[in-house]
Amino acid sequence: MLKRVCLLLVVVLGSFVALAQEINCYPTNWWVGMKNPKVQVMVHGKDFGKGVITVADYPGVVVEKIQPAENPNYVFIDLIVSSAAKPGKLEISSKLGKNTMKAGLPLKARRTGNGVTYAQGVRSEDLVYLLIPDRFSNGNPANDKIPGLLDQTLNRDSIFHRHGGDLQGIINHLDYLQDLGITALWSLPVWQNNMPDRTEHGYAITNHYKVEPRIGTNEDYLRLSDELHKRGMKLIQDVIYNHTGLYHFFVQDKPMKDWLHEWPSYTGTNYKDQVLFDPYASKADKAKMLDGWFTPMMPDLNQGNPYVANFLIQHAIWSVEEFGVDGWRVDTYIYNDLDFMNRCNKALLEEYPRISIFGETWVHGVPNQAYFTENTLGDVPFRSNLPGTTDFQTLFYGIQESLTKPFGWTDGVNKLYTTTAQDYMYKDPMKQVIFLDNHDLARFYSVIGEDTAKYKMALSWLLTFRGIPQLYYGNEILMTGFTNPDGWVRLDFKGGWPGDKENKFTAAGRTDKENAIFNHIRSLAQFRKKSTALQTGKLMQFVPEDGVYVYFRYDGNQTIMCIMNTMTEAKTIEGKRFHERTAGFNRGIDIPTGASYSLTGSISLRPLSMLVLELK
Amino acid sequence: MLKRVCLLLVVVLGSFVALAQEINCYPTNWWVGMKNPKVQVMVHGKDFGKGVITVADYPGVVVEKIQPAENPNYVFIDLIVSSAAKPGKLEISSKLGKNTMKAGLPLKARRTGNGVTYAQGVRSEDLVYLLIPDRFSNGNPANDKIPGLLDQTLNRDSIFHRHGGDLQGIINHLDYLQDLGITALWSLPVWQNNMPDRTEHGYAITNHYKVEPRIGTNEDYLRLSDELHKRGMKLIQDVIYNHTGLYHFFVQDKPMKDWLHEWPSYTGTNYKDQVLFDPYASKADKAKMLDGWFTPMMPDLNQGNPYVANFLIQHAIWSVEEFGVDGWRVDTYIYNDLDFMNRCNKALLEEYPRISIFGETWVHGVPNQAYFTENTLGDVPFRSNLPGTTDFQTLFYGIQESLTKPFGWTDGVNKLYTTTAQDYMYKDPMKQVIFLDNHDLARFYSVIGEDTAKYKMALSWLLTFRGIPQLYYGNEILMTGFTNPDGWVRLDFKGGWPGDKENKFTAAGRTDKENAIFNHIRSLAQFRKKSTALQTGKLMQFVPEDGVYVYFRYDGNQTIMCIMNTMTEAKTIEGKRFHERTAGFNRGIDIPTGASYSLTGSISLRPLSMLVLELK
Repeated sequence: MLKRVCLLLVVVLGSFVALAQEINCYPTNWWVGMKNPKVQVMVHGKDFGKGVITVADYPGVVVEKIQPAENPNYVFIDLIVSSAAKPGKLEISSKLGKNTMKAGLPLKARRTGNGVTYAQGVRSEDLVYLLIPDRFSNGNPANDKIPGLLDQTLNRDSIFHRHGGDLQGIINHLDYLQDLGITALWSLPVWQNNMPDRTEHGYAITNHYKVEPRIGTNEDYLRLSDELHKRGMKLIQDVIYNHTGLYHFFVQDKPMKDWLHEWPSYTGTNYKDQVLFDPYASKADKAKMLDGWFTPMMPDLNQGNPYVANFLIQHAIWSVEEFGVDGWRVDTYIYNDLDFMNRCNKALLEEYPRISIFGETWVHGVPNQAYFTENTLGDVPFRSNLPGTTDFQTLFYGIQESLTKPFGWTDGVNKLYTTTAQDYMYKDPMKQVIFLDNHDLARFYSVIGEDTAKYKMALSWLLTFRGIPQLYYGNEILMTGFTNPDGWVRLDFKGGWPGDKENKFTAAGRTDKENAIFNHIRSLAQFRKKSTALQTGKLMQFVPEDGVYVYFRYDGNQTIMCIMNTMTEAKTIEGKRFHERTAGFNRGIDIPTGASYSLTGSISLRPLSMLVLELK
Repeated sequence: MLKRVCLLLVVVLGSFVALAQEINCYPTNWWVGMKNPKVQVMVHGKDFGKGVITVADYPGVVVEKIQPAENPNYVFIDLIVSSAAKPGKLEISSKLGKNTMKAGLPLKARRTGNGVTYAQGVRSEDLVYLLIPDRFSNGNPANDKIPGLLDQTLNRDSIFHRHGGDLQGIINHLDYLQDLGITALWSLPVWQNNMPDRTEHGYAITNHYKVEPRIGTNEDYLRLSDELHKRGMKLIQDVIYNHTGLYHFFVQDKPMKDWLHEWPSYTGTNYKDQVLFDPYASKADKAKMLDGWFTPMMPDLNQGNPYVANFLIQHAIWSVEEFGVDGWRVDTYIYNDLDFMNRCNKALLEEYPRISIFGETWVHGVPNQAYFTENTLGDVPFRSNLPGTTDFQTLFYGIQESLTKPFGWTDGVNKLYTTTAQDYMYKDPMKQVIFLDNHDLARFYSVIGEDTAKYKMALSWLLTFRGIPQLYYGNEILMTGFTNPDGWVRLDFKGGWPGDKENKFTAAGRTDKENAIFNHIRSLAQFRKKSTALQTGKLMQFVPEDGVYVYFRYDGNQTIMCIMNTMTEAKTIEGKRFHERTAGFNRGIDIPTGASYSLTGSISLRPLSMLVLELK
């Protein structure tokens, strides 16, 4: 750690050395006909800013402002691209003495189908699959190691090294995912992470406009998007606004002094979401939370700097338009400048009214989480416009406690019940993303002691509850692991690499136990695809009694009765208690098993079991 | 329990038997010159409603309506008493055949000093002392046993029997309380509880207009109020709107069929606050929560019945005006019809703009608690107008966890920190009543394993934190007890009875350990009386680090720095971290010990200790 900090100080403090050898525009291209006609182009190239800058005449494009940066390697050019402009290439040049340097900004025609064929939004109708490109499947062994990148590891025996998985590997298994019932793919970030180590996660971006070459090219990413859309599936992009990789070109060669939040000596964030809403927080704690670095390898971007803000917002818009992204996941949401985040969300939603956005809110407590999303608060200093969150509350205080703690007045499944009741704080609970685990958490199957009965209950809950359900790759094949460290929950999907001895992508390669879970998910996920009640129906929950929790999903067409027995003994419930929702029905068919249950008397429940009954 | 339920059914179902032998008006008197000139008088007397009802002419009084009830023993008379009316007695008669029955309603002149000498409000400037009249001190042995009442026990050896404590006992010890630093008295309910057993708590009212004769008379209650006011102290009344005692005259002889919430068979409340705000709650669960009975001995009043509502609201107004009550504590707040509660609070606050009201909210979670009080919510179906609560959150998730659980990311003192940060949900956190224990909870000293170091910390917290601090009788003399059952936390204050071997009211009667705690409270409480920072100052809290929690109370005149080391090892903190609040000061004087601490370097903290530093 000390070594890293020293390295960091040397790099950051010596950052005015221009490293770039070429001239690039960021964004690397733009479009004619955007709703917001403004775009700010950052041109980066050695001494580019020292010369006389000229933007060639381009019908329909107005040059609003040409702004030099403190660092002569940068120039910022504000353009207004009217809808009358035709696609083409805008030329930008810098004349320095006899030398003329040239850069070009392609202006393309827009995609068609905003909100229909792209930027569709990922909603409660969907089932999301989260994966790590490096760890899912290696479809192109040729890109496993890229000369010139800082991290030259390639070793599947180490959780810290590159494993070779890539976008082609994902594309190769889209049919597998579709068969499982998945409708939306969330990949960990795809942008270049040219960092010396631990590059498997992708959260240390070093170039926002270039796909990480070890997982593929920009063209591969576009192909992934197209292949998803071809199957009626959707693409979620994972994005990091708060920080970037230490080896990002604009960290190594900063456009201006206040591009980053820098401190006299290394200062990490305190990771305390509370300081942002605490009426009693100190300025010191707030500054540390927001402006402290996420890690020594991930500098904190100064979103209060308008050039930084524009860069990040434009990258978001660019990604959606360039690749046809449908949904948006914001990393480390709570560490961002929240006013910036509101601007950023607004910009995306104005350009793409149907897009969905959810933010990572790894916090403890519904008031903590609700503060960061659209909520029912009124008289508070700050109102978030973020539509949804990664709903850690139904996980930590909900399903996890239900299956690991004894039933009590506030414990066990009562935590799930009471946490859900606190949904009144959200403007739209259906936009919260629910999950059992992810790349940062112990695998749920391990958390519950590899008990498949409990695991089936958790999966049944996940696929029938309110919100947007999200699976983590390997959930379906009983992958295990605790975060000691997190690499252990990021292992390879067996069968994803040429020559793998086992292939869990096929029924034949899975054990009976694994197939039982795979089929459990598959049956519910496929049922879900055509179940209006599970997709968009209302929720009604009853006060848990004696460890048994009953909730309904229902609409005018369909009623689903979910009965969770969290106790290790068999239980019986009386149908009449639920008359409000069962009236008019005689029986329920359990979706995973097909068994029929009469609603007229009592219903017997096996220990640690869950029924998902479609009422008839 | 079964026996009780059977008894209950017999009594309730056979309730149309008139038991009253006299004719009474409720309220038993009223006033001229009330802001709200309307009053609804319930006249109760055998067959009174069968006759022809006449209200004698009374200048300034208009009879709006005379309404018979389903039960001929009752009549309801709606009056408008204009401010021009003179004090006197309004005569009401019922002529049945040759017989004329008479009732009278005294109309008195109002108290003077609304909001100044009475209805003053109990605020964060105050220190509240909660006691149980039967268990604090026996000042009048003549009223220990009252012939004719159902409960004829008198036995200090049983936690379930009457012990003989009374209002005179309290009056006798007001100087003691004042010396301790108490400024407001909260007694458990004072109204008649003519119930067969467990009458010590007072929450099963059988006559709203008569002080429980075993603790004194209406005159004694008035004298208690006067004696408090004489000392500059305040009176809080504890009131129960939700339910009443099974032997209340209006339960035994119901005015109308829907006076109570009655069920086909005994149905208790589910005690689940969640159903009231849960967007997904069933009607069945809501009905059980609101209309189920609190216990078989405590029928649920139908507050949706306007006569019931008027009766309860008028009793509240009557109590304040008759006895000069300053603050109001509402029992089992969350079980009431919340629209009724809003009406009731509004009526009190309109008549007494300075009065304070807090409700018992024994719930788990800030969103659960905040829902029932004035909050910062906007877009929600219901908004409470209750100014404050019994703040169970800072207790259960706060100070209790701080001193009983190891420090962790969300545990130990971090629970107190994060719970406090959630204060953003309250409109005014300073109106929340904070405490360590009460008559329903294990005594805090027992909860923390009778560790006096921890206990001092808890008391220092209580007397320096935001909100209205409340002590429970015996906190100052290390009384112990767990709620197995609750009678064990309701033991006698030693020295309160003539002939007691020990007298804890005097320093000589207390052990050294007890005196240390008594003096700890006293020094902080007396300091608090003149400390603007502790009374009304702002709070600033810093993120706890390594088990050490630092917060400040401050205003333009004074800054108090509170440092709580929850660890069992000595710790050191650096003064410079708190520069925002310590700038301009050089040292801090610890209030309980007088020791001086320099702020310029580091401050050493003993294990399990708390400093309360007045900065100089």
